[in-house]
Amino acid sequence: MRIAVDAMGGDNGSKIVIEAIKEFKKNYPDDEIIVFGKKEELEELSSICRVVDAPDVVPMEAGALEVIRMKNSSMCKAINTMKEEGFDAVVSAGSTGGFLSAATLILKTIPGVKRAALVTAFPTKIKGKQVVILDVGASNDNSPEELLQFAYMGKAYNQAIYKVAQPKTYLLSNGSEDHKGSPLVKDTFKLLKEKQFEGFVGNIEARDVLNGDADIIVADGFSGNILLKGMEGVAKMFGSLIKGAFKKNLWTKLGYLHVRKGFKNISETFDYKSVGGAMLVGINGVVIKAHGNSDTYSFSSALKVAHNLVENDTVNKIKEALSNE
Amino acid sequence: MRIAVDAMGGDNGSKIVIEAIKEFKKNYPDDEIIVFGKKEELEELSSICRVVDAPDVVPMEAGALEVIRMKNSSMCKAINTMKEEGFDAVVSAGSTGGFLSAATLILKTIPGVKRAALVTAFPTKIKGKQVVILDVGASNDNSPEELLQFAYMGKAYNQAIYKVAQPKTYLLSNGSEDHKGSPLVKDTFKLLKEKQFEGFVGNIEARDVLNGDADIIVADGFSGNILLKGMEGVAKMFGSLIKGAFKKNLWTKLGYLHVRKGFKNISETFDYKSVGGAMLVGINGVVIKAHGNSDTYSFSSALKVAHNLVENDTVNKIKEALSNE
Repeated sequence: MRIAVDAMGGDNGSKIVIEAIKEFKKNYPDDEIIVFGKKEELEELSSICRVVDAPDVVPMEAGALEVIRMKNSSMCKAINTMKEEGFDAVVSAGSTGGFLSAATLILKTIPGVKRAALVTAFPTKIKGKQVVILDVGASNDNSPEELLQFAYMGKAYNQAIYKVAQPKTYLLSNGSEDHKGSPLVKDTFKLLKEKQFEGFVGNIEARDVLNGDADIIVADGFSGNILLKGMEGVAKMFGSLIKGAFKKNLWTKLGYLHVRKGFKNISETFDYKSVGGAMLVGINGVVIKAHGNSDTYSFSSALKVAHNLVENDTVNKIKEALSNE
Repeated sequence: MRIAVDAMGGDNGSKIVIEAIKEFKKNYPDDEIIVFGKKEELEELSSICRVVDAPDVVPMEAGALEVIRMKNSSMCKAINTMKEEGFDAVVSAGSTGGFLSAATLILKTIPGVKRAALVTAFPTKIKGKQVVILDVGASNDNSPEELLQFAYMGKAYNQAIYKVAQPKTYLLSNGSEDHKGSPLVKDTFKLLKEKQFEGFVGNIEARDVLNGDADIIVADGFSGNILLKGMEGVAKMFGSLIKGAFKKNLWTKLGYLHVRKGFKNISETFDYKSVGGAMLVGINGVVIKAHGNSDTYSFSSALKVAHNLVENDTVNKIKEALSNE
């Protein structure tokens, strides 16, 4: 398995990528990593992987056209070389818009795919159960036909990774009743019913997303992004409030000792960093966007996500799912 | 001040409404409450307020037309009597769709208002600071012109209640950059700039909603609803996980004693029940939707919200804001 890694462009520089690759290689010694970035920064990796010099860094706010023009950027070189040499996956923590556009333009969408979607998995109330949500932000405007394809791709993704026998698919809406929703949701609901989409249960409210009922939740990219970031924001705020409450004084620190285990479980449940990265589905190849502010742990989780998706032949499963549409 | 209360239709029956009114009357003995519902259930209130028999209960899933036809329902009677006798406010925990439609049809929108919006306040990271969000679910489809009016109404609401001198207004979007957003957000952004809307800062991502920067956040009803419920869902899940971690055994209960105060602060910060109710702005009158699953505390908070909004002459302030649009 060969994975291309863009070492630049993340908020925390190439240092965390270096550590993440070392960590990853310990667990997956057989995977070949080809890393793109400033050669002098990546020196120490040369003993365990191929380092390709690509000194230009795509800025966070770069638009699609700008990125494509930056042929010597670590991001473009990684994607281009992936295409030319037939690598299995590419991982980057750089500009989301830039990375998604460049990957789509260079690797192309799977024939028949109207729009690629960003998929991520979320922890739920049920221990160990994840819910797959898409699109969480590749698009800002979608049609019912695109949402129908998201449902097919989300299901294929879910089955490749989590292997749920009868995954339940829901549409994100402003109420759980069948007639609820934006005009887009209402039309998509009808389409899913018409197609007799297997496992389609109905609408789900944002407050029930994490209750463990749903395996796949389909949303337009704008709403999915609001949902994802809204939930992340609250989780982060809770995390820091809890930390603050325990750190107040010696007495509260003592209190922490009593409940350490329980709180470790909570933080593991809500550990978005362990999810690591979101896959851009609908593209020819495994394309993983790691969090812009990834640390070593989350970037190595993103590499693990890439490994799992390749190992499970996810892209071909998505192709199959769409051909039976 | 005269407030009409629909005692039926909430998930927890009239009992919690009775207790909430008693509680409210202790703090606001001069407010006149007129309560609508099954007379036999409301008997014990007759010493402190007027009880109007209205035995029909609007079911949770009732649509707009269905509600309007239920002339003898506690909900319709409350709104109708409010109009006929010129009460200042109406509060209900019943069917959201039914209540909003009935209130809009009976009380009518303020002249010039294109669409009423549901406004609620959210706690932020900054102690004591609330952020006003609208629309959180009165509509499921909006135009840029409607969102512009939401901005004016949200600002008037904020100034009536929180009296922030220079409130900052943001648009909910999928990125903070000026060019980000759904087509609707992009058009609304342009409109707010054209109108030189005072205090308009720009776009805000869902993850930053609670960081305390924003005083007012404008969203279409569908996205606002996703945001609100997504955040509520995570907060609720965190709450129950924390409770579980402390309740595990004697040792963890002892731990709780050490950090009780800090965690009380956290739960107060995230106490959506203290917000009590959302106001339907853009209507002639103070119309408060209490949570469907309100308990005594949250229903009495909803009554308090109604009191504050009337006391601060909010409806007239909204009228003024729109006339200067």
